[in-house]
Amino acid sequence: MSSLNIFELERNLKSWLEEDMPFGDITSDNIFEKKHKGEGDLIAKEEGVICGIDIYRKIYELIDKDVELTSNFIDGDLIHVGQKVGTISGPMASVLKGERLGLNIMQRLSGIATMAHAYSKEIEAFKTEIVDTRKTTPGLRSLEKYAVRVGGCTNHRFSLSDAVLIKDNHIAGAGSIGNAVDMVKKSIPHTVKIEVETENLDEVLEAITAKADIIMLDNMDNEMTSKAVELIRSKSSYITIEASGNMTLDRLKDVAKTGVDIISVGALTHSVAALDISLKFKK
Amino acid sequence: MSSLNIFELERNLKSWLEEDMPFGDITSDNIFEKKHKGEGDLIAKEEGVICGIDIYRKIYELIDKDVELTSNFIDGDLIHVGQKVGTISGPMASVLKGERLGLNIMQRLSGIATMAHAYSKEIEAFKTEIVDTRKTTPGLRSLEKYAVRVGGCTNHRFSLSDAVLIKDNHIAGAGSIGNAVDMVKKSIPHTVKIEVETENLDEVLEAITAKADIIMLDNMDNEMTSKAVELIRSKSSYITIEASGNMTLDRLKDVAKTGVDIISVGALTHSVAALDISLKFKK
Amino acid sequence: MSSLNIFELERNLKSWLEEDMPFGDITSDNIFEKKHKGEGDLIAKEEGVICGIDIYRKIYELIDKDVELTSNFIDGDLIHVGQKVGTISGPMASVLKGERLGLNIMQRLSGIATMAHAYSKEIEAFKTEIVDTRKTTPGLRSLEKYAVRVGGCTNHRFSLSDAVLIKDNHIAGAGSIGNAVDMVKKSIPHTVKIEVETENLDEVLEAITAKADIIMLDNMDNEMTSKAVELIRSKSSYITIEASGNMTLDRLKDVAKTGVDIISVGALTHSVAALDISLKFKK
Amino acid sequence: MSSLNIFELERNLKSWLEEDMPFGDITSDNIFEKKHKGEGDLIAKEEGVICGIDIYRKIYELIDKDVELTSNFIDGDLIHVGQKVGTISGPMASVLKGERLGLNIMQRLSGIATMAHAYSKEIEAFKTEIVDTRKTTPGLRSLEKYAVRVGGCTNHRFSLSDAVLIKDNHIAGAGSIGNAVDMVKKSIPHTVKIEVETENLDEVLEAITAKADIIMLDNMDNEMTSKAVELIRSKSSYITIEASGNMTLDRLKDVAKTGVDIISVGALTHSVAALDISLKFKK
Amino acid sequence: MSSLNIFELERNLKSWLEEDMPFGDITSDNIFEKKHKGEGDLIAKEEGVICGIDIYRKIYELIDKDVELTSNFIDGDLIHVGQKVGTISGPMASVLKGERLGLNIMQRLSGIATMAHAYSKEIEAFKTEIVDTRKTTPGLRSLEKYAVRVGGCTNHRFSLSDAVLIKDNHIAGAGSIGNAVDMVKKSIPHTVKIEVETENLDEVLEAITAKADIIMLDNMDNEMTSKAVELIRSKSSYITIEASGNMTLDRLKDVAKTGVDIISVGALTHSVAALDISLKFKK
Amino acid sequence: MSSLNIFELERNLKSWLEEDMPFGDITSDNIFEKKHKGEGDLIAKEEGVICGIDIYRKIYELIDKDVELTSNFIDGDLIHVGQKVGTISGPMASVLKGERLGLNIMQRLSGIATMAHAYSKEIEAFKTEIVDTRKTTPGLRSLEKYAVRVGGCTNHRFSLSDAVLIKDNHIAGAGSIGNAVDMVKKSIPHTVKIEVETENLDEVLEAITAKADIIMLDNMDNEMTSKAVELIRSKSSYITIEASGNMTLDRLKDVAKTGVDIISVGALTHSVAALDISLKFKK
Repeated sequence: MSSLNIFELERNLKSWLEEDMPFGDITSDNIFEKKHKGEGDLIAKEEGVICGIDIYRKIYELIDKDVELTSNFIDGDLIHVGQKVGTISGPMASVLKGERLGLNIMQRLSGIATMAHAYSKEIEAFKTEIVDTRKTTPGLRSLEKYAVRVGGCTNHRFSLSDAVLIKDNHIAGAGSIGNAVDMVKKSIPHTVKIEVETENLDEVLEAITAKADIIMLDNMDNEMTSKAVELIRSKSSYITIEASGNMTLDRLKDVAKTGVDIISVGALTHSVAALDISLKFKK
Repeated sequence: MSSLNIFELERNLKSWLEEDMPFGDITSDNIFEKKHKGEGDLIAKEEGVICGIDIYRKIYELIDKDVELTSNFIDGDLIHVGQKVGTISGPMASVLKGERLGLNIMQRLSGIATMAHAYSKEIEAFKTEIVDTRKTTPGLRSLEKYAVRVGGCTNHRFSLSDAVLIKDNHIAGAGSIGNAVDMVKKSIPHTVKIEVETENLDEVLEAITAKADIIMLDNMDNEMTSKAVELIRSKSSYITIEASGNMTLDRLKDVAKTGVDIISVGALTHSVAALDISLKFKK
Repeated sequence: MSSLNIFELERNLKSWLEEDMPFGDITSDNIFEKKHKGEGDLIAKEEGVICGIDIYRKIYELIDKDVELTSNFIDGDLIHVGQKVGTISGPMASVLKGERLGLNIMQRLSGIATMAHAYSKEIEAFKTEIVDTRKTTPGLRSLEKYAVRVGGCTNHRFSLSDAVLIKDNHIAGAGSIGNAVDMVKKSIPHTVKIEVETENLDEVLEAITAKADIIMLDNMDNEMTSKAVELIRSKSSYITIEASGNMTLDRLKDVAKTGVDIISVGALTHSVAALDISLKFKK
Repeated sequence: MSSLNIFELERNLKSWLEEDMPFGDITSDNIFEKKHKGEGDLIAKEEGVICGIDIYRKIYELIDKDVELTSNFIDGDLIHVGQKVGTISGPMASVLKGERLGLNIMQRLSGIATMAHAYSKEIEAFKTEIVDTRKTTPGLRSLEKYAVRVGGCTNHRFSLSDAVLIKDNHIAGAGSIGNAVDMVKKSIPHTVKIEVETENLDEVLEAITAKADIIMLDNMDNEMTSKAVELIRSKSSYITIEASGNMTLDRLKDVAKTGVDIISVGALTHSVAALDISLKFKK
Repeated sequence: MSSLNIFELERNLKSWLEEDMPFGDITSDNIFEKKHKGEGDLIAKEEGVICGIDIYRKIYELIDKDVELTSNFIDGDLIHVGQKVGTISGPMASVLKGERLGLNIMQRLSGIATMAHAYSKEIEAFKTEIVDTRKTTPGLRSLEKYAVRVGGCTNHRFSLSDAVLIKDNHIAGAGSIGNAVDMVKKSIPHTVKIEVETENLDEVLEAITAKADIIMLDNMDNEMTSKAVELIRSKSSYITIEASGNMTLDRLKDVAKTGVDIISVGALTHSVAALDISLKFKK
Repeated sequence: MSSLNIFELERNLKSWLEEDMPFGDITSDNIFEKKHKGEGDLIAKEEGVICGIDIYRKIYELIDKDVELTSNFIDGDLIHVGQKVGTISGPMASVLKGERLGLNIMQRLSGIATMAHAYSKEIEAFKTEIVDTRKTTPGLRSLEKYAVRVGGCTNHRFSLSDAVLIKDNHIAGAGSIGNAVDMVKKSIPHTVKIEVETENLDEVLEAITAKADIIMLDNMDNEMTSKAVELIRSKSSYITIEASGNMTLDRLKDVAKTGVDIISVGALTHSVAALDISLKFKK
């Protein structure tokens, strides 16, 4: 669980368990006693990248320390159809209480990791990296960005607070790209880079002149992207170049070929298909 | 915003805004002053059912009461490609601060409402109703179930606390369906129905005998479903019959024809495709 | 602690301890060191049904894991005057810090359980069950409803969210009982029953026709109650019949004789007399 | 609402409303629209002292600012059977959502204020004052102590943090009353008085010598109480004298006659009988 | 950690750790694995009174139970330049995550304790005690008042809720000191003392007559202070006398000589100089 | 209140008010009624930079909207001894309830802004900027960093999450500076700069080679600092150079002369002297 806020995670898991059990599990609590044990296997129903094992385990630490989740996998491993991803055993009522939340999280995070893996794999021959966006599920940003990393991509900024991204509205407000960069630079930590969104080569040139740290090429076709990369590299080897806008899997290689450093992909998190994993109880 | 917990909603919206701005918007805050105004139109990029208008408006009430969101639509309306769904205007920095969260929520909820609409439409000629499941996004259950209703379907239970669903593990634990129903009935409010999950006609018969209020036909093919419906109806006109398990859109009519009252569909919420809606600023 | 929300319970207990010690126990903290041990017996000063043992123990888990609460009783057991209900031992300052909250809760819950026991005992020869109402102490609903169950009664709905109760205002708003039931049925989960409150036989008939799941006979005398039961049973064996309004202990048998399924009693929780239990320290 | 923590109050009211509506009022929300108005009168069904009017009003501020609660009474006024205590009007669904919580609080606080009034009235000819104890409902201490003041009594300490009360265990731990007082005095604010609990005249003498600010005469009969008062007054006019333990209404005058300054009464809060007040809707 | 609210402390420590790591430590988390161990010594760079050892240890309990903080000191001990105050060892990433918060707290609390020690030492030959004020850092009052006690002084009231301090505005509002005292006495617990702020001998006399428990001599010079003490002592041996206003270290002895019981010093907390303590890692 | 988290601010202000009034202001609440008005002037007792006006105003919005704080100043303005900084008027009890918290915050923030102003003024002839550190008061980081900006300096990273700072322990853990930079770069957002702490010229060279974005010269004397700047500039014009360690006011100019871009100063926040501002009531 690299680089997660463990206090936030625990608070969230408790709150999500309460969402699912505001006043207990009225089925299991009235049938099972503590002595009824149960055991089930987590089975992959689809191929993909597993993500969320430690989080699933953490759910049971919160519900009942007598439940054990064992697994030979770690987050990031590839799993295949029919493969046993792990085993959950302990008091049956407790196992059932965590089942749904655990699966909801694991399926969603594994879905993201699987997609991230596919995207990063597609251009592994290039130095270009894939990053996510702020199009994450409200309340799940940390976990979804974690899943993106697990899948082999990296993250764009975490929020509006930790990096600058100057868009057309900002430019209009400030009068010019140069003004916008200057206004921001005066007030922000020197540890943060300034990124400028550009839509054509004129704006790219302005951004270079304004000493942007990162230039985003927004919704440009591959040809304009290539020209923009050339223009930037003719002036500076330091500027990070990011391509953005409608970056589907089948376009990735062509975009990577233009020499951009970064491709940002909203689809990694905004329309997640859950990876099908189920908990199969032993009779 | 029918039947939402307004205190929970406000608490969540604040927390999601903080997720996106833990220490302000370091771009906009350093460029715009209060006097800089902005205005943008919410534009549908896909056809679907709009959901989340009042929630988007609520976001701006929390950020800055000077931002106005006007719309001729209400949640549940059909929207078409290119149509203007609403207009957001006010201090530019404030408009931008709520943009991403508002779109993230509206796109997701509209995606759910759109799918729910398609499912309910498919069998509108039948008395059968479509319901959701507990396969919702952690933290978003209330909103996602709201979107399901907006789209024309209804909800299954909200949590493990407000309805009983006796599954195979419970039956094994209790010894029989009859035992399980009796154990639960002794302890739960008389206002709550008891549902029993069955996998074959023997179990269906047991569930009828045990006086289950709802019988779920789990993963049965259409033929067995038909037989189960006949069996149940031959004994009681009161029992609600629910079909569940792999209920894809193209199967719905055939299942509805069997005479079941309810079809539950996990796909309504577990793999949401966001409906594409964007905020287009005016120059 | 069947069917309690353990996260809510822990949060509440901490908050109640803070209510009693916002900045420590300035008497004990300045007199006792960790090594000062103390031991006291919980002594019943009245006869009744004990409730709250595990919760008292949980209080000490939060304050100081070195305090032990041992008991030969479980919630629901009858206790007699002078009987030792349990023993608390550990560091004296810690024992004292939990004493008042533990007693406040145990006395109150035991008071409720004792009254619930008396009510359910009164009509144990009948199939009729006693249920509570929403007239609970703000913030204590889960615990008070738990005590009602421990005393041998069952619960009415937990809140306005988990069951429907159509009262005269709703009927007026909807135009008729039939309309009200239809309006609600369209929107609620199929797992929830619909109850209709009636004040005379005409309304009872309307409620039957509207296919209410539960019919409440509100403030009817025994004669009218009997007639209502007959009327309902002549039409349906499925409808649950609930008698409500001023259900004092001495009326219960007569009401039960009418054949109602359920009698709801606000007094179970709205005017709790604490059961006198004290902590007697050993010298 | 004198001397209440308004932030705590608002937080509590929200949390209690959520306890009663975790996901909305599924009856009213599906029947009423915003335009349906309702109006009801708060009617006293018993004689007593009203308490909680402003809190009831605050509940509606949180639910829906369009609901109005008007009243000719203020907290502390006497109300008589059948009297109209106030009127609530506004959107019907909103009126109904606050009804139960408002009544639960008002009935309970009025019950406490009514009892406090009876106790203080009983000895109004004396200079002795009645105070409450820490035997309050968990989570409601501030409100219950407020109701005690409204009824004409005053409060004992609010918690273990804001005043010192040295009991037998502390004395045993410290070796003597003198030691205990000295140990505490060294560490506590000089703004706080030190009270010592005594069970016989020897202890009273020790407490005087130790310069206790308040001496509690615990469970003494009237004769011993008289002697203790004489003993204390023979030494000091400054020490506050408090009688405690089983202080029933019919004993109060005799105890007051002994000349004690304070009588503390646990019954004021530990076994509250709700004062019957109902909301009668207009047709 | 005498007389601290342990639940508040834990909640605060978590929140302060989240302030410093809202989404992890992106340096350490990406370099160290669990197996990388580290060890560092806490070294005093200035002479003073150590305060915060148990709190520093508590920080690591929250971050990672595998980190150990050992120390031969307890809060209140004198430490000298170059002395080793303790040792922290465990997984390196965890050690680093708690380092800054631990030092920030320990340096600040030790700074306060050191100043409190100097003040109390200055007048140790007198019976006069030094107390703090409400000029504490928002959110840190409990901890700062704890440090004041550790340094050898005591505390003034904790808040506006736990003691009465009648100032000139109150006197103006009430009409006179006598009125103000009477108005308050009627409503407050008998366990709380009433303090009156006075600026001249006339007011002192009024306060005596009004039976104030504590009289504050505000901003009086030493001569007037002496006269006030004489005046008070000529009337009562019970009244506590507090001198306040600009009480610098070099004035303390002269003020103490006047015979006041208490000197209150805002500087103890309002302008804290951190005591320099560093964590020196072993290579 | 540029770039503050308004939800966090409101939550904190409420919590700090509760710290000072857990159960009301027992002096003012028992003396003043709503109709008693009061008015006071905020008077500067020292020269400095004012900071916290809007926050003081926000405190009164939370306590009582009838209190008004008017001022001709904005945060960042210079104020002189005796100058009126603002006027607070409204119901007297409410004015008093916010007085202490408002002053505590304003004095502290103005103290920081005043020191920041002095530091930035000292080197205003240079292009070098002064930044703060993470040595802030727990719970007050956002506000203290805001005050630093108000005073004319800028901020270093906000937390361990939003920027990378590789120190000697990290280097040891990774094996070399180059390794450390590479390990981190793989996992962090491309929007964040990587800073490396160096103690000698060899390390500076390594950091250059490793392509650090920022090089911190830690505890170097001015001569070595000069050499380091030359070395870095001979290789790159892009790297930001930060001097750190014991940066007292009188050293600043000499350090700035070396050509470093940034000087970081822990003293800006770790040992704040409150700026003396008082609230002088009008008779």
